[in-house]
Amino acid sequence: MSLENITVLGAGSWGTALGIVLADNGHNVRLWSYNEEQVNEINNLKTNENYLPGIQLQENIRAYVDLQTALKDVETIVIAVPTKAIREVVQKVSKIIKTPKTLVHVCKGIEPDTLKRVSEIIREEMPDDLMKDLVVLSGPSHAEEVSRRQPTTVAVSSENIAAAEYVQDLFMNNNFRVYTNEDIVGVEIGGALKNIIALAAGISDGLGYGDNAKAALITRGLAEITRLGTKMGANPLTFLGLTGIGDLIVTCTSVHSRNWRTGNALGKGQSLEEILAEMGQVVEGVRTTKAAVQLAEKYNVTMPISSILYKVLFENLKPKEAVDELMSRRKTHEMEDITNMLGEVYKQL
Amino acid sequence: MSLENITVLGAGSWGTALGIVLADNGHNVRLWSYNEEQVNEINNLKTNENYLPGIQLQENIRAYVDLQTALKDVETIVIAVPTKAIREVVQKVSKIIKTPKTLVHVCKGIEPDTLKRVSEIIREEMPDDLMKDLVVLSGPSHAEEVSRRQPTTVAVSSENIAAAEYVQDLFMNNNFRVYTNEDIVGVEIGGALKNIIALAAGISDGLGYGDNAKAALITRGLAEITRLGTKMGANPLTFLGLTGIGDLIVTCTSVHSRNWRTGNALGKGQSLEEILAEMGQVVEGVRTTKAAVQLAEKYNVTMPISSILYKVLFENLKPKEAVDELMSRRKTHEMEDITNMLGEVYKQL
Repeated sequence: MSLENITVLGAGSWGTALGIVLADNGHNVRLWSYNEEQVNEINNLKTNENYLPGIQLQENIRAYVDLQTALKDVETIVIAVPTKAIREVVQKVSKIIKTPKTLVHVCKGIEPDTLKRVSEIIREEMPDDLMKDLVVLSGPSHAEEVSRRQPTTVAVSSENIAAAEYVQDLFMNNNFRVYTNEDIVGVEIGGALKNIIALAAGISDGLGYGDNAKAALITRGLAEITRLGTKMGANPLTFLGLTGIGDLIVTCTSVHSRNWRTGNALGKGQSLEEILAEMGQVVEGVRTTKAAVQLAEKYNVTMPISSILYKVLFENLKPKEAVDELMSRRKTHEMEDITNMLGEVYKQL
Repeated sequence: MSLENITVLGAGSWGTALGIVLADNGHNVRLWSYNEEQVNEINNLKTNENYLPGIQLQENIRAYVDLQTALKDVETIVIAVPTKAIREVVQKVSKIIKTPKTLVHVCKGIEPDTLKRVSEIIREEMPDDLMKDLVVLSGPSHAEEVSRRQPTTVAVSSENIAAAEYVQDLFMNNNFRVYTNEDIVGVEIGGALKNIIALAAGISDGLGYGDNAKAALITRGLAEITRLGTKMGANPLTFLGLTGIGDLIVTCTSVHSRNWRTGNALGKGQSLEEILAEMGQVVEGVRTTKAAVQLAEKYNVTMPISSILYKVLFENLKPKEAVDELMSRRKTHEMEDITNMLGEVYKQL
């Protein structure tokens, strides 16, 4: 594998953690951030305390506030900004680069109203002749653990399998295992929608309900995500893999998850405004819930968890009423839920 | 629903918790235990401190050390003993009862060497003319949470759906939601094999690996269970439901799980003998691992997690070497794993 200059756009916890992986593999990593103070901290102290407390960055990571400098002589650009910021950032990049680049996005969200997946947003904003390939990297991967070199597995997906393999080579090492996957729709949908279930799981925990209730929520959540994703063109098997159930589990059961923490605080009685103000980082699931409810309508799919969470987030439904409603649906044949939801889906394989 | 006398065989944590559910629904519950001291504690103090500390039992739960008295005038018998004890207990019951009963088993294991599921063991030991119906109850349900009336969902499965519905009615209440399911093979296999993955997840946690590694293990574990179960005649969709992924998640992520705790202690360097001696309760996964490796051979299915766990439990492989081997398999296309494992399976639906 040849060593490269690689630019990571966004110096939040995930962008920085991926920079650490790339730097471990010997690449020259350029972290771009609009925050000059953060850039100085990264370059002078080799830390990024607000996002990855206690982690020492390597010498081959440098941060830049100037995008043009950050993009000089790079072949690969990793996009690690909040979904909300993607259009603006990609537009800026498109005005700077002169030759086609490999773009890797690691963002988990869906744009409300347009209902675009992240790769679709990027394609809209980046001219074809400036994009060599587009690859998504996703999976069960808390940034904190990746930055501490704990064993992690992710998938990279692209319409061009050679591009996915190229990105696999850039990131792969002993602690960070990378698998390829050709179903970009399934990978993006799984990554985006799991944040909704994590919010619901956090609410359940915040209300003092236990692991039994949470496991039921996650199980139903997987069925709901699979049903929508398949209607949108995903391969249903993708939802059984790392970027589906794998990422769903980690996000719903780990205290590292911002979406879980937001739900947990909601369950404990805090208001969404208070929580988001205290968090100081983006909670993608809030925005994605809006998009999911719109997608459920567009594709004519029942999504009970997303629908009721929407009411909690935006229509003042009490969290306890929401979870109790989900848990106490009339008694039924389990297969009404799971088979009706998934049977037809898997038969299409 | 008419109120009944119901006998629960086994006064461990799960049998007692299910007795509490039935007593909440107004039934007269008879807990049978071979331990006279425990029986006296339940009847005199209305507690079962060794198994459900801090929980007050209701007046309509009585314990019996004499099996004949415990079985007098009952229509339904719940079997909640360790898998190892089932043959002996069912034989004893068959010598006492005179009319056919509905048997409900809540046991999660597979018998090594014979490779029988629990319902098959029961059918071998109970004459047909003494068994009205056989129903299995399973799902993500830690006993401690059930005894505290935390929201829980389970499935009941039987070849006779009317029998499953009858048992559903006995147990169903606002905190304990019961779904029916016709795939008894899938329900039993999922319940038994999840304990293996929980042992592996506990080892990963005990070694200090994080949530990312555990989510990867659970994801692979589901694929491995589904592949074997389907070859044994289960409906693959069952593994996506409460008794499959639901129970797998709760067992792998909760400190309540004895299998997880056993793995955790193994990961921290304790020997299996020490751990089992300290635990004082049955750890079903240890025995099930033996059975799983035999089943994998019989059905010609690759089960990497079960196979390597077998080496840790019975052949002194170091836990760290085992998990590192699982995590560091050569780079590959994710779909090699998931699609090859499951694609053919789901196409048969």
